[in-house]
Amino acid sequence: MSVFTAAADQTVCTPLPVLGRDVTVPLVTGGEVTYAALDYAASAPALQRVWDDVAAYAPYYGSVHRGAGYLSQLSTDLFENARRTVAEFLDCRPADQVVFTRSTTDSLNLLARAIPAGCQVFVFETEHHASLLPWQDAQVTYLDAPRTPRQAVETLERALADRDPYGPALVCVTGASNVTGELWPVRELAAAAHAHGARIVLDAAQLAPHHPVSVTDLDVDWVAFSGHKLYAPFGSGVLAGRADWLQAAEPYLAGGGASRKVTRRQDGGVAVEWHETAARHEAGSPNVIGAYAIASACKALTEAGWDSLVAREQHLVRTVREGLAEVPEVRILSLFGDDAPRVGVISFVVEGWNSSHFAAALSAEYGIGVRDGLFCAHPLVRTLLGSDPQTQGECGAPEAAPGERSLNAIRVSFGAGTPDEHVERFVDAVRELVAEGAKWQYRTEDGRCVPAV
Amino acid sequence: MSVFTAAADQTVCTPLPVLGRDVTVPLVTGGEVTYAALDYAASAPALQRVWDDVAAYAPYYGSVHRGAGYLSQLSTDLFENARRTVAEFLDCRPADQVVFTRSTTDSLNLLARAIPAGCQVFVFETEHHASLLPWQDAQVTYLDAPRTPRQAVETLERALADRDPYGPALVCVTGASNVTGELWPVRELAAAAHAHGARIVLDAAQLAPHHPVSVTDLDVDWVAFSGHKLYAPFGSGVLAGRADWLQAAEPYLAGGGASRKVTRRQDGGVAVEWHETAARHEAGSPNVIGAYAIASACKALTEAGWDSLVAREQHLVRTVREGLAEVPEVRILSLFGDDAPRVGVISFVVEGWNSSHFAAALSAEYGIGVRDGLFCAHPLVRTLLGSDPQTQGECGAPEAAPGERSLNAIRVSFGAGTPDEHVERFVDAVRELVAEGAKWQYRTEDGRCVPAV
Repeated sequence: MSVFTAAADQTVCTPLPVLGRDVTVPLVTGGEVTYAALDYAASAPALQRVWDDVAAYAPYYGSVHRGAGYLSQLSTDLFENARRTVAEFLDCRPADQVVFTRSTTDSLNLLARAIPAGCQVFVFETEHHASLLPWQDAQVTYLDAPRTPRQAVETLERALADRDPYGPALVCVTGASNVTGELWPVRELAAAAHAHGARIVLDAAQLAPHHPVSVTDLDVDWVAFSGHKLYAPFGSGVLAGRADWLQAAEPYLAGGGASRKVTRRQDGGVAVEWHETAARHEAGSPNVIGAYAIASACKALTEAGWDSLVAREQHLVRTVREGLAEVPEVRILSLFGDDAPRVGVISFVVEGWNSSHFAAALSAEYGIGVRDGLFCAHPLVRTLLGSDPQTQGECGAPEAAPGERSLNAIRVSFGAGTPDEHVERFVDAVRELVAEGAKWQYRTEDGRCVPAV
Repeated sequence: MSVFTAAADQTVCTPLPVLGRDVTVPLVTGGEVTYAALDYAASAPALQRVWDDVAAYAPYYGSVHRGAGYLSQLSTDLFENARRTVAEFLDCRPADQVVFTRSTTDSLNLLARAIPAGCQVFVFETEHHASLLPWQDAQVTYLDAPRTPRQAVETLERALADRDPYGPALVCVTGASNVTGELWPVRELAAAAHAHGARIVLDAAQLAPHHPVSVTDLDVDWVAFSGHKLYAPFGSGVLAGRADWLQAAEPYLAGGGASRKVTRRQDGGVAVEWHETAARHEAGSPNVIGAYAIASACKALTEAGWDSLVAREQHLVRTVREGLAEVPEVRILSLFGDDAPRVGVISFVVEGWNSSHFAAALSAEYGIGVRDGLFCAHPLVRTLLGSDPQTQGECGAPEAAPGERSLNAIRVSFGAGTPDEHVERFVDAVRELVAEGAKWQYRTEDGRCVPAV
């Protein structure tokens, strides 16, 4: 299925229960309000189901692998079963490996260390830094931002065809942009990669929480995602896919668990035999709770049903986009245009406002949590804003002067746990802020834009 | 303070409450019994206090760093405060950095990638693989197992003095052995390292849960430990210490959070400015819950008081060692002898028994969880057993034939959550098994020694 199959008028299910759904926060203008968590693209709240599963397991937590005790064996089974659950969730091929990492960033850094010597890497400048930066030990070709999905495929095909030498190559591409929310033509890019003798890894950090991912259907060689964006914020991520490069690579981490046998050599050195399973790259005691939390989230999303999850999220997307469209001062950032399929991630700027100021006002005056900045995708955001990198603030530093032209953007993002009220409050708040201005004064302190007291 | 200050007759506090303290497990001989978790050296149960803190925070979990919302700011503060709590727990110097990793293994792999070019590494063969193996890109000198703490210092001094060239050097040493539990002379080794122009990193994975660690007093350059052995099993670890090598090194992971500014260059490439704070090596969304859990554990241990924690653990150590001493078939593994100070980690073999069989019987017939194997310290265990590596089974594969001479060992380990009853049951079970044999038949299946049905 795809986003398109969810009809606009389909009956929309209720949000999945998440932790924090009843948390109230103080307003600078007085009183309290239920917190509207609209920064899912950075980190989503834990599903209540995930939390309940973790809480039920936690008393049974035990050392995995060589522990002889009952709880160790139970925990080992739970950890290895989590691998199988993730493989099913991703519709992996039978021979694929599922490696537990700590995040998408970690997964892609692992793959970067596993690519064969001489492998060239092709990546669009539009990627999140987690996909853009891990390849710097290889020869990397950065592709300019395409303006249509078709242009993306053509750009990639041309680059792959022209590569010199025509040796091993890897393409790294996002499934859904962490800035625009737009879906990328993954299946077509995978076909292009394979037609040109290259492999492809899918950064599904923003796709997997919003949309089913089938490694088999998309025909990608690897996929990476993070638990903390998939409603399972317990420090784990996943790299899943073809075993051959992973088995041939040096272990990502050297240590116990990855080593099968270690002996002193006659010359005083140390000889190591490494595992060839996923354990090869998982040295150290695994994060059992993190892996189990991801597996729990995979099951919860599958059981809730992607049709209704996607339908509900698309309903929220329409609410936000239609609401913002009524505010002429708002410009939504987009590579592929209004009609492009997208997930619940929308970035925008507001004429006459600096984005840090706007985001701070949304928080302090409306109890709404969004994000401002460059979203760890600096080249993409600059391309979308048409801004000059030389004059632009660093990521992590809010803009100093409220009212100046914004060099950052604002991002609102949501998902399976978001009630209608949150996005409706957000749209109303944008409208009110633009029409009436902020009710409070703000200033920059310790790298944050905060209410002035 | 040190282990020695805890007088034998000092009033011993009650165990700290841990998750799973009431979990019962079935016995193969019928009935159920409270599970005795005696594999703390692999992974300790979560302190109830840690769990309660995590549970109280979880609804307030939010994206850290650039999130503008209330929960994001709260989570960012909590994460950065966790760093300060860890620095206090370790008694760090003011300029030290605290980097959150995923484990001790990860911490030492990070440091291995941060050592300057040409740095020689000195490590005893007695180390856990996490300390033994990450240095293989450097010139490594493996030092033979010493038989006294003094011999350890002399061996290190000689090796450092003789190094050629006499350039930058790093010593990596355990604080407490994960096999024998014996304390290493860290302060003296640090002094030796510094006297010879070398630096030293302390693997405190087995020390920090059992004994106070002061970076300042020990005068070590770095210290590494894991949350999951410190009663905080949420996927986080720590590397703390001198900033200079860390700031000069390439980022451990390339990605968002570590990158301050990313721009396309005129030639089509990408230029990156990296942070110089701990964030440099923490790319990707941090494991906020994991870091908070570690900070919670640090506070809980400090508040419980090391004097009483150490006194209580030493009482348990004596119970186990005196109990085992009464069974002539049991041989406790030791490098430094009976009088050496030690934490609650004791490994042994039983004459006439293979260790996997013995550990399986402890679990199935007594509800006691210990560990059998080589404990990810293969050279050390072989040295202690006097066994030939060529004939020895792999780590991860239990020995096939119950009754044959054991090439593995059994390890019992405990800590702040262990009640007296667990170690008393363990001692009684060892006595009974040796005297009467196992009540059940066992066989090897899927890499485990399990009751035959």
